[in-house]
Amino acid sequence: MSETKKIEVMENIHGENERIALETNQRLTEAGIFCVNVMGAPGAGKTSSIIQIIKNLKHVTPFVIEGDIESDLDTQTLTRLGIKTFQINTGGACHLDAPLIRDAVNMLAPNKKGILFIENIGNLVCPAEFVIGEHMKLLISTVTEGSDKPYKYPLAFEKADGVILNKSDLMPYIDFDLDFFTKGFRALNPQAPLFKVSAKTGDGFSQVAQWLEEKAMGLNEAKD
Amino acid sequence: MSETKKIEVMENIHGENERIALETNQRLTEAGIFCVNVMGAPGAGKTSSIIQIIKNLKHVTPFVIEGDIESDLDTQTLTRLGIKTFQINTGGACHLDAPLIRDAVNMLAPNKKGILFIENIGNLVCPAEFVIGEHMKLLISTVTEGSDKPYKYPLAFEKADGVILNKSDLMPYIDFDLDFFTKGFRALNPQAPLFKVSAKTGDGFSQVAQWLEEKAMGLNEAKD
Repeated sequence: MSETKKIEVMENIHGENERIALETNQRLTEAGIFCVNVMGAPGAGKTSSIIQIIKNLKHVTPFVIEGDIESDLDTQTLTRLGIKTFQINTGGACHLDAPLIRDAVNMLAPNKKGILFIENIGNLVCPAEFVIGEHMKLLISTVTEGSDKPYKYPLAFEKADGVILNKSDLMPYIDFDLDFFTKGFRALNPQAPLFKVSAKTGDGFSQVAQWLEEKAMGLNEAKD
Repeated sequence: MSETKKIEVMENIHGENERIALETNQRLTEAGIFCVNVMGAPGAGKTSSIIQIIKNLKHVTPFVIEGDIESDLDTQTLTRLGIKTFQINTGGACHLDAPLIRDAVNMLAPNKKGILFIENIGNLVCPAEFVIGEHMKLLISTVTEGSDKPYKYPLAFEKADGVILNKSDLMPYIDFDLDFFTKGFRALNPQAPLFKVSAKTGDGFSQVAQWLEEKAMGLNEAKD
């Protein structure tokens, strides 16, 4: 197959995806649900960060859509905590897309104003290329992945509306250059806030939760 | 675009990729070069593991092809150590493919028997789906990513011919369940060796290097 044909096919896929994502976004906005697309590498601590954020929410109801290639380990954890969660298994696909999320929102049927966290597939590359209906992209990076990640996976850092730097409790035991990390991140993204956190200890999550609640309340004020 | 059309397109891409990968594999076999496709999540320590393996090689010449979306940070590191390295930048693509490697092998022009390490894009999903001409897939997982990785990213663990469990020096500071990890890995892959290592301290790499040298020498014995 020619390169041109391959590019046309990818453009068709992206166009259709964006149309459906916009529909989902409008529907969630109408319902007063602020939607956060949570991205990060495998093992970055996406689920444990979502749990820590939810523990620190004071004014809004949380919902979760859990994206995994296989398994429902994280959904079991979230459900045990009483969080309304719907599981997607992509069966191999490396990112979530808008049609999957449209159907998952139908199944989850969130019935209150609140925040919907969508945990994307653990992958620093592909998820950044696809909108899924979100109001915001939240990127979870970790100190154990090393300080060169913004240089090597620029799109995810460029598109993030906020970045969580997780596993900061391990800082004393590793070589992590925060200045080098921050310099790389800021070259791509001058605006998005950066939160240093530990999902293990809970440190730093009250600020993340407060920031998200303000965004969610802003959505409803703009609408009313 | 219909789902059927999408599937046909993907099948065409995979078929052409496999044909080119086979050609590269035959060419490397003829030249006595054992090719290792090094896969792992972002920040798993792929480059530092390759360096530790190379330090422990006793009988064969190493070559490296370095795959990154952007940047040549790792190639700079390898070249400073005197290792013959060729850099690929995919400019966004989430995995290496056979045409990229065919061209990179032409540019690198390895001129001795030895081992060619190809560092794939940091991604636990897409690289496992594409052969690139390798004799072996070596997967690098880490204790900091958590013990559930084989359950969540099964294809990479299933296809691996060997698994390195890196960052074992951080074991005392984290919750990592080695039994749960091993059980998940063995359910997918009963045969491939598992090496517990630390690229920071160098622990465990002499065994990995010895195992790879035996494989590389086996290739040349089979050919002669």
